[in-house]
Amino acid sequence: MGTRLTDSRQYAHLWGTAELASLFEEPARLQAWLDVLAALASAQARLGMVPAGAAAEIATHARVDALDLDLVAEQTRLTSHSMLGLIRALQQVLPEAAREHVYAGATVQDVTDTWFALAMREVGALVWRDLRAIEESLLGLAVSHRDTVMAGRTHGQPGAPITFGFKAASWADEVRRHLDRLREGRPRWLVGQLGGAVGVLGFFEPQGLALRAQLCAELGLGDPGISWLSSRDRVAEFGGLLSMVCGTLARIGTEVFELQRPEIGELREPTTPEAVSSITMPHKRNPEGSEHLDTLARLVRANAAVLVEGMVAVHERDGRGWKAEWSAFPEVCLLTGVALEVGGRLVSGLEVDVEAMRVNVERHGDRIASERLLAGLAGKVGKHTAQQLMHEVLSPGTTEVAHVVDALVAAGAATEQDCRHWLAVPATGAAGAMVDTVVSRARAARAAEPDTWP
Amino acid sequence: MGTRLTDSRQYAHLWGTAELASLFEEPARLQAWLDVLAALASAQARLGMVPAGAAAEIATHARVDALDLDLVAEQTRLTSHSMLGLIRALQQVLPEAAREHVYAGATVQDVTDTWFALAMREVGALVWRDLRAIEESLLGLAVSHRDTVMAGRTHGQPGAPITFGFKAASWADEVRRHLDRLREGRPRWLVGQLGGAVGVLGFFEPQGLALRAQLCAELGLGDPGISWLSSRDRVAEFGGLLSMVCGTLARIGTEVFELQRPEIGELREPTTPEAVSSITMPHKRNPEGSEHLDTLARLVRANAAVLVEGMVAVHERDGRGWKAEWSAFPEVCLLTGVALEVGGRLVSGLEVDVEAMRVNVERHGDRIASERLLAGLAGKVGKHTAQQLMHEVLSPGTTEVAHVVDALVAAGAATEQDCRHWLAVPATGAAGAMVDTVVSRARAARAAEPDTWP
Amino acid sequence: MGTRLTDSRQYAHLWGTAELASLFEEPARLQAWLDVLAALASAQARLGMVPAGAAAEIATHARVDALDLDLVAEQTRLTSHSMLGLIRALQQVLPEAAREHVYAGATVQDVTDTWFALAMREVGALVWRDLRAIEESLLGLAVSHRDTVMAGRTHGQPGAPITFGFKAASWADEVRRHLDRLREGRPRWLVGQLGGAVGVLGFFEPQGLALRAQLCAELGLGDPGISWLSSRDRVAEFGGLLSMVCGTLARIGTEVFELQRPEIGELREPTTPEAVSSITMPHKRNPEGSEHLDTLARLVRANAAVLVEGMVAVHERDGRGWKAEWSAFPEVCLLTGVALEVGGRLVSGLEVDVEAMRVNVERHGDRIASERLLAGLAGKVGKHTAQQLMHEVLSPGTTEVAHVVDALVAAGAATEQDCRHWLAVPATGAAGAMVDTVVSRARAARAAEPDTWP
Amino acid sequence: MGTRLTDSRQYAHLWGTAELASLFEEPARLQAWLDVLAALASAQARLGMVPAGAAAEIATHARVDALDLDLVAEQTRLTSHSMLGLIRALQQVLPEAAREHVYAGATVQDVTDTWFALAMREVGALVWRDLRAIEESLLGLAVSHRDTVMAGRTHGQPGAPITFGFKAASWADEVRRHLDRLREGRPRWLVGQLGGAVGVLGFFEPQGLALRAQLCAELGLGDPGISWLSSRDRVAEFGGLLSMVCGTLARIGTEVFELQRPEIGELREPTTPEAVSSITMPHKRNPEGSEHLDTLARLVRANAAVLVEGMVAVHERDGRGWKAEWSAFPEVCLLTGVALEVGGRLVSGLEVDVEAMRVNVERHGDRIASERLLAGLAGKVGKHTAQQLMHEVLSPGTTEVAHVVDALVAAGAATEQDCRHWLAVPATGAAGAMVDTVVSRARAARAAEPDTWP
Repeated sequence: MGTRLTDSRQYAHLWGTAELASLFEEPARLQAWLDVLAALASAQARLGMVPAGAAAEIATHARVDALDLDLVAEQTRLTSHSMLGLIRALQQVLPEAAREHVYAGATVQDVTDTWFALAMREVGALVWRDLRAIEESLLGLAVSHRDTVMAGRTHGQPGAPITFGFKAASWADEVRRHLDRLREGRPRWLVGQLGGAVGVLGFFEPQGLALRAQLCAELGLGDPGISWLSSRDRVAEFGGLLSMVCGTLARIGTEVFELQRPEIGELREPTTPEAVSSITMPHKRNPEGSEHLDTLARLVRANAAVLVEGMVAVHERDGRGWKAEWSAFPEVCLLTGVALEVGGRLVSGLEVDVEAMRVNVERHGDRIASERLLAGLAGKVGKHTAQQLMHEVLSPGTTEVAHVVDALVAAGAATEQDCRHWLAVPATGAAGAMVDTVVSRARAARAAEPDTWP
Repeated sequence: MGTRLTDSRQYAHLWGTAELASLFEEPARLQAWLDVLAALASAQARLGMVPAGAAAEIATHARVDALDLDLVAEQTRLTSHSMLGLIRALQQVLPEAAREHVYAGATVQDVTDTWFALAMREVGALVWRDLRAIEESLLGLAVSHRDTVMAGRTHGQPGAPITFGFKAASWADEVRRHLDRLREGRPRWLVGQLGGAVGVLGFFEPQGLALRAQLCAELGLGDPGISWLSSRDRVAEFGGLLSMVCGTLARIGTEVFELQRPEIGELREPTTPEAVSSITMPHKRNPEGSEHLDTLARLVRANAAVLVEGMVAVHERDGRGWKAEWSAFPEVCLLTGVALEVGGRLVSGLEVDVEAMRVNVERHGDRIASERLLAGLAGKVGKHTAQQLMHEVLSPGTTEVAHVVDALVAAGAATEQDCRHWLAVPATGAAGAMVDTVVSRARAARAAEPDTWP
Repeated sequence: MGTRLTDSRQYAHLWGTAELASLFEEPARLQAWLDVLAALASAQARLGMVPAGAAAEIATHARVDALDLDLVAEQTRLTSHSMLGLIRALQQVLPEAAREHVYAGATVQDVTDTWFALAMREVGALVWRDLRAIEESLLGLAVSHRDTVMAGRTHGQPGAPITFGFKAASWADEVRRHLDRLREGRPRWLVGQLGGAVGVLGFFEPQGLALRAQLCAELGLGDPGISWLSSRDRVAEFGGLLSMVCGTLARIGTEVFELQRPEIGELREPTTPEAVSSITMPHKRNPEGSEHLDTLARLVRANAAVLVEGMVAVHERDGRGWKAEWSAFPEVCLLTGVALEVGGRLVSGLEVDVEAMRVNVERHGDRIASERLLAGLAGKVGKHTAQQLMHEVLSPGTTEVAHVVDALVAAGAATEQDCRHWLAVPATGAAGAMVDTVVSRARAARAAEPDTWP
Repeated sequence: MGTRLTDSRQYAHLWGTAELASLFEEPARLQAWLDVLAALASAQARLGMVPAGAAAEIATHARVDALDLDLVAEQTRLTSHSMLGLIRALQQVLPEAAREHVYAGATVQDVTDTWFALAMREVGALVWRDLRAIEESLLGLAVSHRDTVMAGRTHGQPGAPITFGFKAASWADEVRRHLDRLREGRPRWLVGQLGGAVGVLGFFEPQGLALRAQLCAELGLGDPGISWLSSRDRVAEFGGLLSMVCGTLARIGTEVFELQRPEIGELREPTTPEAVSSITMPHKRNPEGSEHLDTLARLVRANAAVLVEGMVAVHERDGRGWKAEWSAFPEVCLLTGVALEVGGRLVSGLEVDVEAMRVNVERHGDRIASERLLAGLAGKVGKHTAQQLMHEVLSPGTTEVAHVVDALVAAGAATEQDCRHWLAVPATGAAGAMVDTVVSRARAARAAEPDTWP
């Protein structure tokens, strides 16, 4: 429990997932750092730079459970050095002979940047998994509701009809593009860091490059080719992608928030019997999950922007942007994780009120099919003449028009038969066919890719 | 200890202060919320809305130490309601007769927004105190170094001379404006919230307004006049001011960072004997505090921007922005707190290397006084003719010019006597007089205002 | 016509106002700069620093209409100096004797920062004027609709009733706080700049301070006391306030956007007979103005954030943030200006559909008064027992409840008489009284303040 | 010339390039829109939806030069419709028979989003071209200065040595990753839009999909498969990438800005004989281009963030985010274009002062090789013992140490022979080898890819 409300016992579930907490909480983070230190020693041992025995001892003792974390904290404060507290605590539990061989030649960023890559590997894998599950739900909705007619809305106003499947397919297609981005970025992101003081591996010379290659191999990471201590585009890109993922989830959430208004009533997010929307207004059912997706997207955007700002790094290391990453990067990951969890729950349990959709469409009489009538009339009198005519018939200033057909007939613009003919073509146009396209290309992509982040 | 690195045992000191942690950590926050609940019951009792005995019991038992915080968390999750967990945990420790009178008619935001006002009161007081201490240090530097000549720099290039006191006075003046803003905003910010379900106090009718007035009075807050459940400018303004305060501190920090470069060596941030700047490069002395001020300013800016975004709230309550405040507002406060602490330490212990300043000025020969020579020459041949002449004499293409005077004399543009005469006027111009102005108006303001946030 | 869509003939009206264009377009900007140059020469003449005749010639000839703006552009490019093009073009039209006395001792930022102050004076005056007109409209709406009952909504869901006047009063109160901020900030913002090369007025010594005072006086600006070349909080604060003003306008716009949905139909933004909402869907009436307020607020927030970022300026002048202001500051002003125009039109012509509000309230049966029933029942059985009882009666899982009263009676929780008694108290609570408070304090403030920015 | 300073005759060159202006200025934009209209009519003609003659007439007359742009503007204002002004102006120049067939069934966003795709195609091509040229320059610098020793700097402090080629290679490698991203994103971005009223192509049924395919083919764009009217990730991703490109350029610019300080003097941006850095301080040479890269990056970041925010779009079209794109997207492109121009000039003309680099390295005596001495000593006494020993010898509190070797020898920690031996290994470690890696993989990528955006 810390000072952040986002980490409080009461609310932590809204700002992170158990899975991600187990990646970012201090013991897990320190264990990851210890793993890097152990891998470094092991790599050094393989190259004859430290005694094999020392590396083995380090591997054995570099367990966060064994360390005095108060000592870590105390020595960190005392020395104002980010890593020395951990090193001293580790040395404390090591046999004397191994102590000198911990963190030999490395710098803070070697450890923390490599950890970033390891964290991106874990987080990316979760995002991949959750996005695919969300895609699966969305494809299911797209298929089931391929032909469920509902009002399309632009500028918040009901217009021509669409199908709910079309809406869901649009979401699914956006999710698929994120999966593509996630796949493409992976080799860029998952690279280790070993640079020493200023990135040129001077301490390790002449074995620096061999050592870095070995370290990366030990950890299952790629070799970056060149140090990236002040080249932060990878971190910025990863954060930027997560902010876009959250943008998509917030888009879905906002749609549900709006369509769950009882005046519309077409969608409802799932709830549980125990949920209490409002104490003072007991009849309410609030779209809190949907709403939260927007909240999370705002915070992720703000933090991801800090990562892009951090790209303007000076010289061989620049603590200003790099330390900002220490706060912003985990924040981006934790919040995205919970957004995926909330979003996944939302789309897998989404209640679609087909009847309300139908009623809402009918409420607008044949006005909602005015695009079809316009198309028909256009074929008869020309597009813009038709548009002008319909503008006059339907403009808000005139009497409420329940039946456009009647008005057009009354105005002598068309016969009833014309209109019937025009309206025989489905006003939802190619909605269904676009659903089919999206679903089939997503299914093909899914079939061709592994369940785990490739 | 939570999932945030910013709250880790190892690094929490870099992302918050003990003082602010004791305001924002969960027990403190819950205690503040309980205080609001107790004040509400007490206010209701005064107005005969709940039995006095119940209010007294609530006041007695509303202690965070007495509550089962696991129950709070569990019931929060179970009900998906932000406050019901706390209410049930409180009811558990209350005598049965008092249980019904907890949180009667209030909503979550009544409690949390009132807490925001209470938090702004605490945080504002700390900011006031720390900014005044920083101002005191800066005024001290301004006075001590009123006439310490150093190179002025524009676009990173040394130009005409200034004094270090002038630089410090510019910082101090900026800090003083923040103090003005902090004083002006106080009555706007420190108002309670009581609105009930939708802000109109329907539950409490006909005593709603009296109750709100009483509640605010109990807590020492102002009465807002009208509910501000979806009117978030106060929070946005407070956050915006803190982001500007951090901007000022980062400005100072960046100046120190740059002038601490050994190639310049004019300023150095204080250090301690135990500090280890670099393990791999033992001779280094890094301006880590200065650097950190910029890191903090970036994060505070990002979070403060979320608060402005939250102003676009819809209807009578909008969870999207409001919940984002739950993360962003404490973050802004915590990070600003540590920025003030780091900044205070920096300016109070700043090492000014007067000798290095002198050497750096002299390194440029009389080129650094070229503005004075230009002024003199302008008096003789006209400003632009003089400027053209000097441009030719001094442009980078020509041979390195150590002595502008010599060059001017050689070019027949001036006599040595002219030049001596022109250079007799201090090139630092009105630097000292501006220091005096800043210091005297700051001193007058300080004398007229209390130590505590007025 | 430039490269920016925002400046195109077609769309410029959506991204700026004629009034502000006449302030920020190049000839106006250059004229303002020439005015500063003329004022500088005049001030220098008063102090005997340049011949009075030269100053008079400069005042006479410093007219943008007389200058060759192509020369300005060409020389700006040739010299890479921001001001030299303008100076040379001015010198071209000056009698020879006056040419040397233009821009004597000043630097670019002296001119441009003083222009910023002049621009803030103009823009602030417009904002003051427009905000007051908007406040007047909002107060009118608040008074007219003090008792117009409508559904309150939280999380997008209708809850207990409010009055539309209460909603309008909340907007008005927020606007009033902006007026307060605008008044408080004025003396901080409206100060001139004269610093010379590095801010210490070395060129003008020993008359630097007298000259700055005289220059500021000539232009009707305050004297800053100390140069603010790299102290940018004033600009950041002004931009921050404008971003908050736009936040308020976007809040109003979003409310109209949502309540204009035909499924709700309670508000409608004004339109004109010629407006064509949709070509393909002729029956639509889009809330485009309302929508645009949100668009503008996003862009203003983004640009205002750049101004805060610019506070971290290094040394005596830092082109990085300062040049970013050249783009961001006018953008903030122009977009805010159009937001005020759109917002003013919106609130002064807002159509309030009282009947739709009534129908929507009644649609919810007595559920919308559940807060009153809860209050009544709470008085009988205790608050939380009552809440639990109503939660059971009204929770979404149970059959649709048209009549809460019937359900309560059926459940034996209350008699019909109880319910009638409880419902006799207006469910809109203190809405009307809060309207009165807001209106009366706004009226008092308005009466005590001038029409023009004080 | 518009109201934006960024578009002024005087300064437009700093905020856009001629090339990009010719893409984004109103006539070019309108021509692109007309091209889309002509392609639409042509596609419709191919499918028998409009007479071939009409399509031919439209193709012939849809020339911006022929239109009355004042009419466009006037009708845009009159109708409040974004496209109707253009349509009417086009109809005015069309033979009567063709008039009805303009824009038949399309909506504004069909035109403007397709234009976005066309613009991304142009802008992406320029970015590809300019980034490759910059990469070429950087590779050249990396190769030429593969072994040019200079001080590495971390936290602004000189540390162990690097080579300048290593620094340039780090930049080049970052640029290469942008090229990869640009290549990967291309098929996602370059897709047309045709959706009609709500995206389902109802007007065109049953030929909607065939028409969209035909339209996209006519324009050389991909078919999106499904409408993306409110699916804005493509635009956000493109903008995000450009903001990262600017981040890289600002990183380079900031490095030059810092190393151009005369106290360091290792790099200098190119200049021209006519350039006037400072009027008041004629000897100065300001790194204005370098500085401007940071300015541009700030503004691009701010605008790109608006594009990500716009992803949270509601329903089938959402004017709030989409209209914000109208301002932010061209801004991102224009500013990135000028950043690439400035950056290209900077890196192709960069002056590298090898001598100053050498002097600066030597200024630090053998302290700068302390990492090597540490490595050597570590081999003798253990890493942490060595580190502690050197910390004592070199800590800032102790006397200025010119010669670490002497100190180590004096302390009995090493012999002079030891030290000589240790220092024989190049302190720049694997810098050269990493240059080779970066250069060879970039060369391979360049050889395998076309000059034009693939």
